[in-house]
Amino acid sequence: MTEEYPTLRVSLDRGVANVVIDNPPVNVLDVQLMTDVLKFLKKVRQDSSVRVIVFSSADPEFFIPHVDMTLIDEPTAFDELALEAPEGLNVFQAFGEAVRHQPQVTIVKLAGIARGGGAEFVTAADMTFASKEKARLAQVEVLMGITPGGGATQYLGQRLGRNRALEILLGGDPVDAETAERYGWINRALPADELDAFVDRLARNIAALPDGVIGAAKAAVPAVDLDGGFTCEHQAWAGLFALPAAEKLIRGGLERGAHTREGELRLEDLLRDLWEELKGQPNG
Amino acid sequence: MTEEYPTLRVSLDRGVANVVIDNPPVNVLDVQLMTDVLKFLKKVRQDSSVRVIVFSSADPEFFIPHVDMTLIDEPTAFDELALEAPEGLNVFQAFGEAVRHQPQVTIVKLAGIARGGGAEFVTAADMTFASKEKARLAQVEVLMGITPGGGATQYLGQRLGRNRALEILLGGDPVDAETAERYGWINRALPADELDAFVDRLARNIAALPDGVIGAAKAAVPAVDLDGGFTCEHQAWAGLFALPAAEKLIRGGLERGAHTREGELRLEDLLRDLWEELKGQPNG
Amino acid sequence: MTEEYPTLRVSLDRGVANVVIDNPPVNVLDVQLMTDVLKFLKKVRQDSSVRVIVFSSADPEFFIPHVDMTLIDEPTAFDELALEAPEGLNVFQAFGEAVRHQPQVTIVKLAGIARGGGAEFVTAADMTFASKEKARLAQVEVLMGITPGGGATQYLGQRLGRNRALEILLGGDPVDAETAERYGWINRALPADELDAFVDRLARNIAALPDGVIGAAKAAVPAVDLDGGFTCEHQAWAGLFALPAAEKLIRGGLERGAHTREGELRLEDLLRDLWEELKGQPNG
Repeated sequence: MTEEYPTLRVSLDRGVANVVIDNPPVNVLDVQLMTDVLKFLKKVRQDSSVRVIVFSSADPEFFIPHVDMTLIDEPTAFDELALEAPEGLNVFQAFGEAVRHQPQVTIVKLAGIARGGGAEFVTAADMTFASKEKARLAQVEVLMGITPGGGATQYLGQRLGRNRALEILLGGDPVDAETAERYGWINRALPADELDAFVDRLARNIAALPDGVIGAAKAAVPAVDLDGGFTCEHQAWAGLFALPAAEKLIRGGLERGAHTREGELRLEDLLRDLWEELKGQPNG
Repeated sequence: MTEEYPTLRVSLDRGVANVVIDNPPVNVLDVQLMTDVLKFLKKVRQDSSVRVIVFSSADPEFFIPHVDMTLIDEPTAFDELALEAPEGLNVFQAFGEAVRHQPQVTIVKLAGIARGGGAEFVTAADMTFASKEKARLAQVEVLMGITPGGGATQYLGQRLGRNRALEILLGGDPVDAETAERYGWINRALPADELDAFVDRLARNIAALPDGVIGAAKAAVPAVDLDGGFTCEHQAWAGLFALPAAEKLIRGGLERGAHTREGELRLEDLLRDLWEELKGQPNG
Repeated sequence: MTEEYPTLRVSLDRGVANVVIDNPPVNVLDVQLMTDVLKFLKKVRQDSSVRVIVFSSADPEFFIPHVDMTLIDEPTAFDELALEAPEGLNVFQAFGEAVRHQPQVTIVKLAGIARGGGAEFVTAADMTFASKEKARLAQVEVLMGITPGGGATQYLGQRLGRNRALEILLGGDPVDAETAERYGWINRALPADELDAFVDRLARNIAALPDGVIGAAKAAVPAVDLDGGFTCEHQAWAGLFALPAAEKLIRGGLERGAHTREGELRLEDLLRDLWEELKGQPNG
């Protein structure tokens, strides 16, 4: 299947589709990766031989670090994806909602950094299991002068409680897997060397259930309707994205090393330092 | 009071009713146990001398392992209970809702295994405190080819968040008390040797409160209305229960040792092994 | 600014207002403290130079132990504050809601005891970080013969789940910071010697965000509307406050040492002992 999806490695084993995200250098959520994931989800939607989808990363350090920041200079890059977005959802929200409403059971196996749109992907999945030693989750958008625009405000507000959602959304700091577990963001934090075996066993067990069981369970615990909130989220995001601060932070961030391994490993500091400098300038 | 309730040992001390479930060999939730619990709840409903009800088990290994699986061969056994179920609720949902809407404070002291309908009972109670060493909670229904039909999908969906609810409902694995606490399923996990003293003190303190306080607190934090969800849950459950897989798993499970101590202690493996064999058969 | 607020010490540094509650001997939430906090919140509401408000206590043992119990003998003391309460809210609910709806980010740094109306204040703030060693949270109202009347039933019912909310509301016992974190009541429990640095860094980082980001995030995750529940809470509280038990417990509690340091450090025992005696009296 892999030739179909330039950024994914897909394999199917006894009802479990293992989808490994492989979009070097750091798995940025760009148009190609979004296109590939959506294409895959759509293709298997009606395929009863696929019962569980496990997403993981080919990169030991990064799951998805955030949405492609070059969007700032190519605002039309996502236009094709936007054509397929359901009424009332922007292209990033539509991406999360496609994951959240997939009929199969979706599981994220998280062993690296997931930030911004990558963290939204994680949260949209049905379940997430994360490495205690290596996983990090963050909504880093505020450090780019914006708020999340792909579902995080609604997903986290609903799942974490407003107190913790605001801390994550406004603090911008990464949390480790044990904190994410305590906050209810993910299902569980597991020792790195147990993560594969735990997720594999769970996925296989679920895939082996009698016909109809997965659908019945997902129907009995439907995804909460968040439509009103998405409009509010989009307005907040779009309003900020149009301001000079966001432009300077995103373009400046790219110049300073975002999208490179070194830059991404210290992205929070990189953006905070940049903002300190920008604020000090006459027209900052 | 005990003669009234063949499966319960009831004692009252300073406003606290201690209800010990004693339905050998393993405390299966059968017609008699359901009848006794409902009869007890109804009897004390208007009794202002009973303020707190603490449920525990006479069996050190089992609280309630699940609903009586012989239901598969005696579908009319629950007919009498069904006559008393409120409009829109099946007999198992009506059981949970009777617990959840009891005017007294209901507390489960959990020191053994509670699965399926037994776990639904636990979740329906106002509070649960569980032994770190001995308590286990599971929704094991999927291993019988069905989804829960007595409230678990709604209770867990509402209390745990969809990510953890789906893990519990579809994974079918038991979780220990510390995991159940982290997931918000129960109030607290406590060391086994502190459980009795903790619950006794709390129950006694609540029972000693001035008149009207318990009712005021419960009125100010009403049980969430889940009626729409119960219909959805029932349809999912009933649709699967009518399929051959459920019949084979439940009847086959009984033949392999369910309802016996040995079988119940390894029920998950017993059912998974059975399903592997059934799937391997020509008409499996 | 301090002369304006007899019970507060206010300082502003780079967008962070540090508000230290200083109302000796034990920081009781009396008319003056409520008035000062409301006056401060109103004053800075439109002040864009204030972005984050951090509340802490000048008293190492007490944040706010509860509402002024002498209210029992001065029922008109709060009349002036009541005039400013929004339609449908009593004066204590209006206080919590003023905190909860403040446009700035509100953070409580908790290193002592917060009970009753003090705990409601904590819960109404956007975020709370608490000392593992020193913080304690409790809704102690039931030990005074009443249920909370300033938002706790609604805030906790919504945030903690009904099982844990009822435990806190009816048990009346203090919980430590780690339990409060596990219950989702607060954001995090931190070692006492890390608390200041953690909160200061977070507050400063949030205050340094580009214009509009805080408002956008708070708009995208709005405070849940709890208006129906406030009416229910008020009725429960007011009904109990009018009964002889509450009067005896509150007045008797004051006679036994409430509002003094020694009495407040053992308030739960003091009130339980008093109630045991009152119940033993002919007209108790």
